Amino acid sequence: MAPQTACFIVIGNEILSGRTQDANTVVLAHALNCQGIKLEETRTIPDIRERIISTLNECRTRFDFIFTSGGIGPTHDDITSSSIADALGLPLTCHEETFTLLEKCFEPGSFNKARQRMAWFPQGAEPIKSDISVAPGFSIKNIYVMAGVPSIFHSMVNWLVPRLPKGKPLQSLSWYGFNVYESSIAEPLTKLQEEYPTLDLGSYPFEKGEKKGVALVAKGYDAQSVQEAGKRIKLILQNIKATPFEGDP
Amino acid sequence: MAPQTACFIVIGNEILSGRTQDANTVVLAHALNCQGIKLEETRTIPDIRERIISTLNECRTRFDFIFTSGGIGPTHDDITSSSIADALGLPLTCHEETFTLLEKCFEPGSFNKARQRMAWFPQGAEPIKSDISVAPGFSIKNIYVMAGVPSIFHSMVNWLVPRLPKGKPLQSLSWYGFNVYESSIAEPLTKLQEEYPTLDLGSYPFEKGEKKGVALVAKGYDAQSVQEAGKRIKLILQNIKATPFEGDP
Repeated sequence: MAPQTACFIVIGNEILSGRTQDANTVVLAHALNCQGIKLEETRTIPDIRERIISTLNECRTRFDFIFTSGGIGPTHDDITSSSIADALGLPLTCHEETFTLLEKCFEPGSFNKARQRMAWFPQGAEPIKSDISVAPGFSIKNIYVMAGVPSIFHSMVNWLVPRLPKGKPLQSLSWYGFNVYESSIAEPLTKLQEEYPTLDLGSYPFEKGEKKGVALVAKGYDAQSVQEAGKRIKLILQNIKATPFEGDP
Repeated sequence: MAPQTACFIVIGNEILSGRTQDANTVVLAHALNCQGIKLEETRTIPDIRERIISTLNECRTRFDFIFTSGGIGPTHDDITSSSIADALGLPLTCHEETFTLLEKCFEPGSFNKARQRMAWFPQGAEPIKSDISVAPGFSIKNIYVMAGVPSIFHSMVNWLVPRLPKGKPLQSLSWYGFNVYESSIAEPLTKLQEEYPTLDLGSYPFEKGEKKGVALVAKGYDAQSVQEAGKRIKLILQNIKATPFEGDP
């Protein structure tokens, strides 16, 4: 059975301007791997209504799950919720439970309009909770909308992903060879890939300070094939007199 | 004059699996800002021929420049060059100058087929050089193809971007307020955005260890407006009794 697929849409000018380095993709990818959902694409787009709508409508029928981050705070540039409502042709409505929770957090009189905006979701949305912020994300149809701030995003992912339908988790095995060039192992690796067409065999040059080399990775949803291919990868490195090293160098 | 636009396509299973955190977007974004080119979108897609072709063909008419990273090495999963040739309907041909340069780097007899692949580009492509690797990237039409390894990518960006047509550089000014909530400054910031519709005013919560707060950023291509809006942002923070702090906290 093919795994369920996901697309992650990062909504944020601050990523596109280079101000902020995205740290959320790694967090989401790991959580989805464990849940047996395959992250197949990510996109980063600006906080522009038309771009959010068109991207969402392009992606939501192509993938089983759409995750978004960013643009659900209280300021003028936080337009994710209303854009998603527009994309789906749904009205934006006040989520009473969230409104009440938020209201309790603020001193009387300071629960202003900007703060109230965080309780408005597309009609029918369910909140996505976190340990860190009272203001939730939300899910509507196959779209899961989360905060951009990494600690809140992380907490929302931890709450949400285990609640999604579980597939076979992705298995992965890596062997590292120091001072190995990709071009030295290209040929036997190609042959191995042909023998295991359902696996994804990758070769990734790495550099960590002085340490350089290549990481050879076998990934797939069939644990036995991954184990077998892993042993063969170790042999490939040994055959060129490299010392295979398991785990992150 | 509207700035020229760019899309960055990251080709790499290792990013989608969460194995590797993308470090290249920040590098490209900064270089493009200086050159007056606006990074409008990024996508991360797997090393799958059909996905590379469809993504490229979707994007290359929408944006002035397409940059890619990843998949130009010597192994079986390095299929970027041939996929781009397919997308453009061009044959893959041997780039003689690159072939000769690469051949010189290897001991006689060890310039194998895998290594030779790195000299094959879509017909008519020009090499993109770097200080670090003899194997170049290449440009063809409005597509600029670079390596995924961060040090090589960085070096290729340094070589390439200053050679692109220069627009007005992006101006940016940030003020940081510690222990400030976005919802406290949402209202005056909205008003300021209405006064400066050509600028992009953003509000970004930050957390660095114990330090938390909000960064208020004014960005645009008109230096004077950015300066003016910057002064007003400082006032917004002072009006809520925060001490505005310029530059990264």
